[in-house]
Amino acid sequence: MRARDLLVEFPTVALDTPVIEAARLLAEQGLPGLMVVDGAGSPQAILPGPQVLWLAVPGYCQDDPALARVVDERHADTFLTSLGDRTVREALPAKPRELPVSDPDATLLELAALMARTRSPLVAIVDDDRLLGAVTLQTLLAKALDT
Amino acid sequence: MRARDLLVEFPTVALDTPVIEAARLLAEQGLPGLMVVDGAGSPQAILPGPQVLWLAVPGYCQDDPALARVVDERHADTFLTSLGDRTVREALPAKPRELPVSDPDATLLELAALMARTRSPLVAIVDDDRLLGAVTLQTLLAKALDT
Repeated sequence: MRARDLLVEFPTVALDTPVIEAARLLAEQGLPGLMVVDGAGSPQAILPGPQVLWLAVPGYCQDDPALARVVDERHADTFLTSLGDRTVREALPAKPRELPVSDPDATLLELAALMARTRSPLVAIVDDDRLLGAVTLQTLLAKALDT
Repeated sequence: MRARDLLVEFPTVALDTPVIEAARLLAEQGLPGLMVVDGAGSPQAILPGPQVLWLAVPGYCQDDPALARVVDERHADTFLTSLGDRTVREALPAKPRELPVSDPDATLLELAALMARTRSPLVAIVDDDRLLGAVTLQTLLAKALDT
């Protein structure tokens, strides 16, 4: 079995997509993260799901989540509005992670090695810099358990 | 809105659950990870999804995933059999991550702060050490976008 047999379509965002749209995609589709592509559609980064919260949560709350409780419930409910029109570019981790990218010929073991190494539940599959889709941990495990 | 309004049931595994069973749960339910509980049902750790691959993939392949391609396809397809009866305890990261745990009164902002801080897409909700369930990033985002 090869990566091409496990491909799923995976929604992408651009570096200048508003983070709030990225949050909406994650909420609607229950994805583990989003693929960030450049203008030519080539993968630039993975935006891990929890990272969309990073810009919306004040630093003092991240340092000590218990401090977040001093914010009253009504304001706590609407914390995402603080994202305004900030973009995915601003939300990406400062130290970019190794990008889990492979090609359509990758075997199950190769995809698993890449996920284990990068701690990513998805691998982008590209052919000549063109994004074909992704292989998710869920699909990989289902196929590997089925063989 | 409080954590108690966002609770979902979340499957748990024990420290001596075979990793292959954890992999099956992840494959069947498309979860971002699993909650590891002790005999009394109290959360001990989060097993991030990609971590189930860690024991199954030889170290040299993790160091350089391209090396995995020298393994022929038939053996690559069945790499999970190498897990044998190894347990979740052996699969947990050596350096345990901060455990994202909160209580039923936590606000949306507090849960978001915990997810952003621990980079976890789920928070375990406990009451007097008893696990009530989890709040997932997906539910949190859906509610926060809806308000």
